[in-house]
Amino acid sequence: MGDQYEVSEAGAGALAIPSLRWEEPPEGPVLVLLDQTRLPAEEVELVCTDVPALVQAIQTLAVRGAPLLGIAGAYGVALAAARGFDVEEAAAVLAQARPTAVNLGYGVRRAVGAHRAAVAEGADGRAAAAAALAEAKAVHAEDIEASARMAAHGLELLGELLPGGGHRILTHCNTGALVSGGEGTALAVALAAHRAGELRRLWVDETRPLLQGARLTAYEAARAGMAYTVLADGAAGSLFAAGEVDAVLIGADRIAADGAVANKVGSYPLAVLARYHHIPFVVVAPTSTVDLDTEQGADIEVEQRPGHEVTEFSLPSQLGAGAPAGAGIPVAPLGAGAYNPAFDVTPPELVTAIVTEAGVVSPVTREALAELCSTSRWSKSRSGNGMMAE
Amino acid sequence: MGDQYEVSEAGAGALAIPSLRWEEPPEGPVLVLLDQTRLPAEEVELVCTDVPALVQAIQTLAVRGAPLLGIAGAYGVALAAARGFDVEEAAAVLAQARPTAVNLGYGVRRAVGAHRAAVAEGADGRAAAAAALAEAKAVHAEDIEASARMAAHGLELLGELLPGGGHRILTHCNTGALVSGGEGTALAVALAAHRAGELRRLWVDETRPLLQGARLTAYEAARAGMAYTVLADGAAGSLFAAGEVDAVLIGADRIAADGAVANKVGSYPLAVLARYHHIPFVVVAPTSTVDLDTEQGADIEVEQRPGHEVTEFSLPSQLGAGAPAGAGIPVAPLGAGAYNPAFDVTPPELVTAIVTEAGVVSPVTREALAELCSTSRWSKSRSGNGMMAE
Repeated sequence: MGDQYEVSEAGAGALAIPSLRWEEPPEGPVLVLLDQTRLPAEEVELVCTDVPALVQAIQTLAVRGAPLLGIAGAYGVALAAARGFDVEEAAAVLAQARPTAVNLGYGVRRAVGAHRAAVAEGADGRAAAAAALAEAKAVHAEDIEASARMAAHGLELLGELLPGGGHRILTHCNTGALVSGGEGTALAVALAAHRAGELRRLWVDETRPLLQGARLTAYEAARAGMAYTVLADGAAGSLFAAGEVDAVLIGADRIAADGAVANKVGSYPLAVLARYHHIPFVVVAPTSTVDLDTEQGADIEVEQRPGHEVTEFSLPSQLGAGAPAGAGIPVAPLGAGAYNPAFDVTPPELVTAIVTEAGVVSPVTREALAELCSTSRWSKSRSGNGMMAE
Repeated sequence: MGDQYEVSEAGAGALAIPSLRWEEPPEGPVLVLLDQTRLPAEEVELVCTDVPALVQAIQTLAVRGAPLLGIAGAYGVALAAARGFDVEEAAAVLAQARPTAVNLGYGVRRAVGAHRAAVAEGADGRAAAAAALAEAKAVHAEDIEASARMAAHGLELLGELLPGGGHRILTHCNTGALVSGGEGTALAVALAAHRAGELRRLWVDETRPLLQGARLTAYEAARAGMAYTVLADGAAGSLFAAGEVDAVLIGADRIAADGAVANKVGSYPLAVLARYHHIPFVVVAPTSTVDLDTEQGADIEVEQRPGHEVTEFSLPSQLGAGAPAGAGIPVAPLGAGAYNPAFDVTPPELVTAIVTEAGVVSPVTREALAELCSTSRWSKSRSGNGMMAE
């Protein structure tokens, strides 16, 4: 495979349709979402005209991904305000749509706070709604900016780590424009390398059991015209052994104060393989992902998910929406139990660098991470801590 | 999970129905096969009354697994002889049913050689057929004996490596009674530990992309009453990190002269994880798997399989039978390419021990392996070298 050098064709963005956008047609404002449960087979938009529709889209995972949920939450409050609904009630309902999604509550609080402040200053309903919308747009813009900064920092880091160019990057799960207002985290870096003509190959772990790599990252890579190849998670070892991987780039769901990284299950084996093969293992995540209240990796509680995600195959649409047990095609004997942690934890000593919007931490130490977070604008404007929302 | 200690209930054998058996009902001899493409959902037997039926069963993977194919090939020759067909023609057709299955040709040669010898000594058709059947039964019995010997050696080794008992064993792919006339290789050792009351938990890698672990190993473990749990291949890292794995036991498709082990893709990452966590990584395979003509692991050619095995989900029955592209449910964008090696190669320095029917090699060195093979009855009676048949 040594001669398998294809120059990525210059493509469009990573999505045909933005994962989320605010529109103001004559009949009134709406929030338009790319229905992620229909990908990669179909590109379908959901138009939300009120908060209940948005709550349903959140609960069926039509819209998902930690940063994107924050943006959706903020726009949801703006939507309620613009359409004259009770803003406080809408905010309460939205914040509870997915209780574990820390970012959702954060986005809701930002927009409802702006609305309250405007009302307190004597604004009428229309002006207060405009204040909520402005705040939602600010949350959105900040996320786009954070993605762009991570991409720039990550690209620079790749240039330092791999001066030869022609990067062959392995990634896991989905970390692109589908989880972000911008272009995401790890995948944003790969996309920046692609645009700079420095991406030789994106290796996409299929990411069992829910196949976010095969379904979503491959979709984004194909849209962007990247040279990409999907593989079963267990085949990554063969790639490392064959010298076909120059760096691993992954996102993070939570980063402890010591630099331990919780991310989609299957990340830790990649970190061990990368270390064994002397390959950089790079985590890309906003500083908002760093949870300084969690002392160390061992303190991160890992969600155990239902075993039927492993023992049954669900259709892609079912996968996205969280299929109930028994809805899929059995691939194991009836009654088989499964061990199905959602995340694993990679200790800081296996992480070459953490790339954030505020800069890069490398080597990864508690002190360097704390310092970076203290200088980050984001860490001060965020009330929530780490996020574990898929 | 530290307190998750379930005593395995004493169960029956690993299969409800033998994977293969010779029967002689009044209407004439038949070869009865457990249709592996229907597992785990259904236990259905295929009755082969002639060689074309057996060839079809081999080609649809209703019967599969290196040693089992050898036995099936030998019985196929005996069947042709007993039913009065042209034995040489039947042998030629059978040997070509799966060209890469070295064992199939070996079994066919054993039976046809016995038939020829009988004919040369003046035997009539009936006596020559009896000679072919006796040889097929010998091939079968040798395989059963080899399984039993591997199980005994492996159990003893586990006792030495893990003196505390209560083993938590991780395995990959399918290595049990479904691939063997006996109880198989790695799974036979786990079964011996179970019967000895020393198996605390069998961790079963689902083994993407064809899910032999979830479909077949879980089936055998359930049948045998073992305490087992299925997991996505990427979740094995979490188990190692949590201290929940005491040993890894896998089979082998081919072992090079230096002790490098080719086995189902996903084995090598387990070897690297096992080394990182100081856990024994044990390979169980008959000496017939050792290919002394292959100098080292790098010389083993690895079969690249079609990408649609990764980018499409096939029904279990399709999985077993080798589904054509387009027959499954797409889980990646249309046109997505996939890297899909059938095997990976683990270097000898990561292998704690190789357990064979002739004894155990540990540490794994070229010299020790050669010596073991030279003392093995099997290595002398075998004309074929390594086997790569799934």
